[in-house]
Amino acid sequence: MPSESPTPSSLLLGVCDYPEHVSPDLWADFARQQRELGLSFVRLAEFAWSRLEPRAGEYDWAWLDGAIEVAAAQGLKVVLCTPTAAPPAWLVQAHPEILPVGRDGRVKTFGARRHYDPASPVFREHSRRITRALAERYGQHPAVIGWQTDNEFGWGDTAQTYTPAAQAAFRAWLEARYGTLDALNAAWGNVFWSMEYSDWAQIPLPGQAVAACSPSHTLDFMRFTSGLLAAFQAEQVAILRECSSGRFVTHNFMGFFSAYDHHELSVGLDFASWDSYPTGTLTAIGEWNVMEPQVALEYARTGHPDITAFNHDLYRGLTGRGHWVMEQQCGQIDWAPSNPLPAAGAVPLWTAQAWAHGADGVAYFRWQAATMAQELLHSGLLRHDGTPDRGHAEVRGIDAAAHPLVPVVNRVAVLHDYDSLWAYNAQPHSGGLNYWAQTFAYYRALRALGVDVDIVHPDSDLSGYAVVVAPALTVMTPERARHLEAATHARLVFGPRTGLRQLSGRAQDGGGFGPLAGLLGARPLNFDSLPAGLEQTVALEGSPHAARLWAEAYDPHGADVLATYAGGPLDTLAAVVRHGTVTVIGAHSDTLIAAVLRGVLADAGIEVTPMPEGVRVSRRGGHTLVQNWTARSVTWRGHVLPPVSSVLLASPVSTLEEFA
Amino acid sequence: MPSESPTPSSLLLGVCDYPEHVSPDLWADFARQQRELGLSFVRLAEFAWSRLEPRAGEYDWAWLDGAIEVAAAQGLKVVLCTPTAAPPAWLVQAHPEILPVGRDGRVKTFGARRHYDPASPVFREHSRRITRALAERYGQHPAVIGWQTDNEFGWGDTAQTYTPAAQAAFRAWLEARYGTLDALNAAWGNVFWSMEYSDWAQIPLPGQAVAACSPSHTLDFMRFTSGLLAAFQAEQVAILRECSSGRFVTHNFMGFFSAYDHHELSVGLDFASWDSYPTGTLTAIGEWNVMEPQVALEYARTGHPDITAFNHDLYRGLTGRGHWVMEQQCGQIDWAPSNPLPAAGAVPLWTAQAWAHGADGVAYFRWQAATMAQELLHSGLLRHDGTPDRGHAEVRGIDAAAHPLVPVVNRVAVLHDYDSLWAYNAQPHSGGLNYWAQTFAYYRALRALGVDVDIVHPDSDLSGYAVVVAPALTVMTPERARHLEAATHARLVFGPRTGLRQLSGRAQDGGGFGPLAGLLGARPLNFDSLPAGLEQTVALEGSPHAARLWAEAYDPHGADVLATYAGGPLDTLAAVVRHGTVTVIGAHSDTLIAAVLRGVLADAGIEVTPMPEGVRVSRRGGHTLVQNWTARSVTWRGHVLPPVSSVLLASPVSTLEEFA
Amino acid sequence: MPSESPTPSSLLLGVCDYPEHVSPDLWADFARQQRELGLSFVRLAEFAWSRLEPRAGEYDWAWLDGAIEVAAAQGLKVVLCTPTAAPPAWLVQAHPEILPVGRDGRVKTFGARRHYDPASPVFREHSRRITRALAERYGQHPAVIGWQTDNEFGWGDTAQTYTPAAQAAFRAWLEARYGTLDALNAAWGNVFWSMEYSDWAQIPLPGQAVAACSPSHTLDFMRFTSGLLAAFQAEQVAILRECSSGRFVTHNFMGFFSAYDHHELSVGLDFASWDSYPTGTLTAIGEWNVMEPQVALEYARTGHPDITAFNHDLYRGLTGRGHWVMEQQCGQIDWAPSNPLPAAGAVPLWTAQAWAHGADGVAYFRWQAATMAQELLHSGLLRHDGTPDRGHAEVRGIDAAAHPLVPVVNRVAVLHDYDSLWAYNAQPHSGGLNYWAQTFAYYRALRALGVDVDIVHPDSDLSGYAVVVAPALTVMTPERARHLEAATHARLVFGPRTGLRQLSGRAQDGGGFGPLAGLLGARPLNFDSLPAGLEQTVALEGSPHAARLWAEAYDPHGADVLATYAGGPLDTLAAVVRHGTVTVIGAHSDTLIAAVLRGVLADAGIEVTPMPEGVRVSRRGGHTLVQNWTARSVTWRGHVLPPVSSVLLASPVSTLEEFA
Repeated sequence: MPSESPTPSSLLLGVCDYPEHVSPDLWADFARQQRELGLSFVRLAEFAWSRLEPRAGEYDWAWLDGAIEVAAAQGLKVVLCTPTAAPPAWLVQAHPEILPVGRDGRVKTFGARRHYDPASPVFREHSRRITRALAERYGQHPAVIGWQTDNEFGWGDTAQTYTPAAQAAFRAWLEARYGTLDALNAAWGNVFWSMEYSDWAQIPLPGQAVAACSPSHTLDFMRFTSGLLAAFQAEQVAILRECSSGRFVTHNFMGFFSAYDHHELSVGLDFASWDSYPTGTLTAIGEWNVMEPQVALEYARTGHPDITAFNHDLYRGLTGRGHWVMEQQCGQIDWAPSNPLPAAGAVPLWTAQAWAHGADGVAYFRWQAATMAQELLHSGLLRHDGTPDRGHAEVRGIDAAAHPLVPVVNRVAVLHDYDSLWAYNAQPHSGGLNYWAQTFAYYRALRALGVDVDIVHPDSDLSGYAVVVAPALTVMTPERARHLEAATHARLVFGPRTGLRQLSGRAQDGGGFGPLAGLLGARPLNFDSLPAGLEQTVALEGSPHAARLWAEAYDPHGADVLATYAGGPLDTLAAVVRHGTVTVIGAHSDTLIAAVLRGVLADAGIEVTPMPEGVRVSRRGGHTLVQNWTARSVTWRGHVLPPVSSVLLASPVSTLEEFA
Repeated sequence: MPSESPTPSSLLLGVCDYPEHVSPDLWADFARQQRELGLSFVRLAEFAWSRLEPRAGEYDWAWLDGAIEVAAAQGLKVVLCTPTAAPPAWLVQAHPEILPVGRDGRVKTFGARRHYDPASPVFREHSRRITRALAERYGQHPAVIGWQTDNEFGWGDTAQTYTPAAQAAFRAWLEARYGTLDALNAAWGNVFWSMEYSDWAQIPLPGQAVAACSPSHTLDFMRFTSGLLAAFQAEQVAILRECSSGRFVTHNFMGFFSAYDHHELSVGLDFASWDSYPTGTLTAIGEWNVMEPQVALEYARTGHPDITAFNHDLYRGLTGRGHWVMEQQCGQIDWAPSNPLPAAGAVPLWTAQAWAHGADGVAYFRWQAATMAQELLHSGLLRHDGTPDRGHAEVRGIDAAAHPLVPVVNRVAVLHDYDSLWAYNAQPHSGGLNYWAQTFAYYRALRALGVDVDIVHPDSDLSGYAVVVAPALTVMTPERARHLEAATHARLVFGPRTGLRQLSGRAQDGGGFGPLAGLLGARPLNFDSLPAGLEQTVALEGSPHAARLWAEAYDPHGADVLATYAGGPLDTLAAVVRHGTVTVIGAHSDTLIAAVLRGVLADAGIEVTPMPEGVRVSRRGGHTLVQNWTARSVTWRGHVLPPVSSVLLASPVSTLEEFA
Repeated sequence: MPSESPTPSSLLLGVCDYPEHVSPDLWADFARQQRELGLSFVRLAEFAWSRLEPRAGEYDWAWLDGAIEVAAAQGLKVVLCTPTAAPPAWLVQAHPEILPVGRDGRVKTFGARRHYDPASPVFREHSRRITRALAERYGQHPAVIGWQTDNEFGWGDTAQTYTPAAQAAFRAWLEARYGTLDALNAAWGNVFWSMEYSDWAQIPLPGQAVAACSPSHTLDFMRFTSGLLAAFQAEQVAILRECSSGRFVTHNFMGFFSAYDHHELSVGLDFASWDSYPTGTLTAIGEWNVMEPQVALEYARTGHPDITAFNHDLYRGLTGRGHWVMEQQCGQIDWAPSNPLPAAGAVPLWTAQAWAHGADGVAYFRWQAATMAQELLHSGLLRHDGTPDRGHAEVRGIDAAAHPLVPVVNRVAVLHDYDSLWAYNAQPHSGGLNYWAQTFAYYRALRALGVDVDIVHPDSDLSGYAVVVAPALTVMTPERARHLEAATHARLVFGPRTGLRQLSGRAQDGGGFGPLAGLLGARPLNFDSLPAGLEQTVALEGSPHAARLWAEAYDPHGADVLATYAGGPLDTLAAVVRHGTVTVIGAHSDTLIAAVLRGVLADAGIEVTPMPEGVRVSRRGGHTLVQNWTARSVTWRGHVLPPVSSVLLASPVSTLEEFA
């Protein structure tokens, strides 16, 4: 935070505004309205490069000077964006080689956004130049409290780049990583199908071979491109730090986004932000089959609480500091196949949840709905005609002061890393199941038990947790195994595919769990990829549970058998094993996961509060938020929760008792 | 009509024939059979370029001379085609730059048809040359009564062209349209995402950007490519007029085709024609979900009456003069996923409907089924073995003289324009709903009420209409608004998205209905894009109707509220408003549309005749055609209508009363 | 068989092994285990080019010398592979023009396998060179009993090649085939759409035209590319014959693979092999709708008996000599959307069926599951950790000696040719039906009647058959018609589309059945392509049968009418006709096909044994195998067949009586 601003004590509400989209005549009135609505900041200058620099080297600061002054005059703070997500046409014309190339080898033209190759030295130079110009101009402006780098890295399938520049850089990156081709060939297992390289220049980018490339090839390409984006951003961050000390720097990520390592891209940021569009995300993950289509339809106007909460917890966990929602849906969106209106009450519902899951700032997207171009049908707080839209009235009803910025402290962690995600999804082996869906199943079970969760990197400090759940930690190194073995204070729960692979993506040397074998006290036997409609029964303490999509069995070497398969090829084999305080669940079954986790939580002394479907409890500091995300009234503990509503209980003790 | 031919007084029946596909030994017998079958004309020389000009500049007229003479000897008239839809291989070899390029940037090769770029100056020159050669040779032949330009412009996704020539021409077209880049940038809203241009040469063709281009960019590209085809055709028309005076010139369009402005391409034609394949069109629009799949299956062998009638009314409306069906299905087609045989009686059913909806000529496709190449499995009036196919016997039973060419005069109009279509479909915002589906819903409701409909351009003369329905008129200019305001004699009905956009595709300045606000007496509030399975109730005079896919609400400013939403985010808001004689329907609901239209028709004094599903009544002059398109007998007004049958009542008064 | 080896008298079991994938330390133990498991051979060196020739011209034989010696030391025989399916990176780097180009015109890069263009002279030279080097080194090694050429020709959609080299070769092939362009234009029907060529250099490869190319163009391209692969292989075979006399040469084909003529590619081989993955093939043909998805699900862990048996009979029929299964699934695979574990007992089930259908050798794929790269999740007989996997124990239980290599002699033949397949599938005309699905329907009906079947080329010797079924013989020449007419000793049964086309793909001159008209005693009328959900009733001897997808009718000219259509456009017309001993079935109806075939078999004196669903009987020599492929016990003839089980009855007389 800049020295000019005291650290805020309660939730900051703001809005994404694009003054360049409307007549300057409207600016002053807009700023006044924004203040009156209770907003305290505006995010400005995103995508504004063609206005900041209409021609090469000719800067036009006047309009942005004015826009900032108008905001500041109303006491609004400003978050500025580096405009690099939208390189101007003159730059593309002068340097067409900065355009990205897709995995099909075709150049992507100007005409939308993100049309740049982060591997392009020319573009990198222009990125640094415009960032410095902007930072020098506004870095010390008293109204400016922070910066957003670029916008939504990777949007539009642009994280993986296939240009000649990327090709050369990938080869250099591999040489730096492996040193010798022998090492690379061994790590990737290139003896398979004679894929061995004898010259670095032989290594292609993945994506256009006869069939899928080696998962190790893909995995390293994901790491390489993630690193490219991280380096690209780091250049901007360094300039912002240099020119704009005292201001925060963040980036607005997207929900459930897989195309780079968000941990890596959060290094150097003050906190992570993300753009929350609950109705769209619900639709986007429909193919994961985490809920029946008819159930999903019931959440069409709010999104599902656990889907949105997952991303809050994920992005909070990137830095462990209060995250921001840099774009918060406040009306219909425009990018899903269908774009229903949010339910009445959805905007306060989403805002309160964001806060309860650790958000320190929430910016609504956007002030006035765009009257032009690609997002003409997307809503804002104002309609096309300038009158308040539905979300406007809902924001007015939000009392930011009632949401203090106290820390989120949880005792249950879910482990998540992008290496595992990439390795899992490169070879899913199972229709309808992927890394996110598997991970989300554990998260959702915890949330349905009323448990608050941190989502953290597996190599992070686990000392504060009583229960650590690793739903899909398929990449395992000896170092990581030692780190987990050291967490003797916590109860550990692992899911299917645990430890299957080395860092290279190869199976463990010697197979099995590799370096985790001792901790788990078992040996993996077979995994069974179940087609939809073919279920596998698991018996846990006499009760049957239905596994779908995935079932793997274990041979206990010291571990106890908690549950066994009944019927099918895995009949009588262990489905869940426990070795001391470590549990491994091999069957993908929502009810089995819930049952096992409930037992583990009880053993760990974690309070469990089974919640009705669509009703959730979230705690921040001593405050407890109870929400009903359904379109129906729900009676819980004798209280009637109206549809799409929140109750915020400020109590240092267990507020749920009080509530009951 | 050429001076040699008296204006025909009754329906002209003909056939598409390809004498070059068979031995000349067969020609004389074919012509005799055609005459005996009651046909009066043949369409010849379509796609015949490689036979007319086997090598560059070497014409071979002998075969066509002969084919025309053989036809003329039997008293058959001839419609000739310019052969430009199939450039010969030698031309492609000499000028490979005439090949089209698809939106993916890849050249489309020789090997099918329509492999030409209408922006190619070289191809344009050859088009004029072959047209002139053909027109000079046959333009004054007494048997020749008319011309078809090219064939099915746009077939095979060729209307939008992405060649370097098109790129250059598009930029020139934009410069001519906008004059300055400032004007273009403003019209397209290019400040959004820094899409502003500072040089005409920066403007790309749409289609290969990172994501969708601006809808304004797309809209202008559609206009540009439509204009290209229009200019291409106009060159041929001018030559035909010069060399073949007294003959008609037409083009054979396709059903529900969106890729150019059919109004623009009809300028200069004597009348429009279209190619009617009812079973295929039924399948092709299956994704619009205008009827349940099980219902559509019931029409698998006839197509649905309203789908085919819509296109008759659409193409008649292009010029307001009797249109032709230049290709009429007379057996199974070969291009749908499944190609069922037409029902017994389907050919007379289709022919009678075409006439009742204004067709003056119907040519069956084709005489003998092709024994080779891409259409080997398509039917004709003769089989592969030369014996009559099923359609042959059905054509024999048609009495052309019973179908007099009296004018079609209707009092209800449906407004349709391609700007609105393109703008709507560029940003559909709603899965399963598009411009055509929305427009068709209103048309179908009118037809189910027994009402005959003209489909006309919104800027056309509306003076003859008592009711004017504008289902999806989303592009609205001040001029168009004034034109509609002037139609005070008529009752106007508007559907969702009315007037949302300016000509540029931007939202109206100031939002809302823009220049139409005064006429509608209301302000639009929210639109709700409903996913399949999520319905929205609308209450009209106490009766509930279920809206699906789309629901938008209004704030009445002078208008009365006819129907309100019940439940959901739009609860209690106006769904249908009426301002004097102007009604706006915001909810997509077949039953609501029908109920509102019924009331409007009654108020306007238009006779309403509710028809059973699949039974339709159509009037031409004083003649009334009643048809049963279902596979079941239907009893209506006491009469039994056999499956797939017509009754033609020739009466100057309301024949339906007589029928009853 | 090499002179060193006595001809084996019973089933050879082996395994695909990749010693280069593991440490040499493991080799000796692996070989010992293999012998102890009852295996008698290993397949080696597949895809091993980069290890055999690490740099251009530098061979490294040491490791393969060692691997062969280790195997030989345990008495194991060796099948070697030419490694050409995986060209090494150094070769691609030196000659990038050897890379294949897909039908979209894009080069396919290095990074998987089969990245070569068989039309490339450079690659052909290297193929000969490495083949000769390998053959000279090991051709006379006493342990080497045979060779596999390359691997799975056409895998990864590589059979059709679109390189400039292929383009030139295609034109030359056409010139050699047709001599003159007039002949080519006539054969392809190029007058259609002006597709006539006046220069060989005008002829494009198919695949990138505006729409589908002529089926004749496609058909000749399939023949050309098939011939290319055949010539490519023939070069290897010639070298192997020269250097490795006394050893067999085979190739491992894939199930239901369409992309080349497997008869053509079997010329010069000692026998054909194929790679059998029953659970994957079941999934892969799901789109054919040969069974309800719920029924298919019941076979998820075994595959369906008739699907696998079809391919055994198909590949045995290529040479008429005992075929091999060169890769036999022995655990989960990794390439289907879902990859369930095989049922307990599946490996013996598959092995016994392979033998009963004529296999002389079965190699399990693979010894140890790959711990790296693309197939990391595929199973082997050993797990990643080196312990025996489920299949290992099942192989141990197989008694190879109980499966003697006596001939398969059947009296019923199904005719199959790739010309018909290509012509049918180039214009399927019917959603959900294709050549394979139609052919399989007849095969399955025969198998369900307990009949053993040969699948043979239509031009092959038919003298041994009492019943000859031609399910989809759509390409018919005069020579082929005479050959069939000469089979007067047999009862012939034809299916829909019989004889529709000439060799060129055109319809028969004069239409109809062409040269087969006299034999069939009928004329084809209409074919009706039925959409899913629209059935057509056929009455056979008073019993109704439901046809789906396809129904064609006949006009008998001497033939008797066995069944007629009831209702629909074909009402009262003949659906099945019989002319002496020749029957034509026009309706696609599983029950109708079964009923007609049952009658024909009875007339021919072929024993019919109706089998319960999932239970099948197969005979080899005097031995009879009864198998239950279902997951349930089935009682048949009083015996209880456990789930997934076999009973082998060694009896020279009808063993089924004995069984009962």
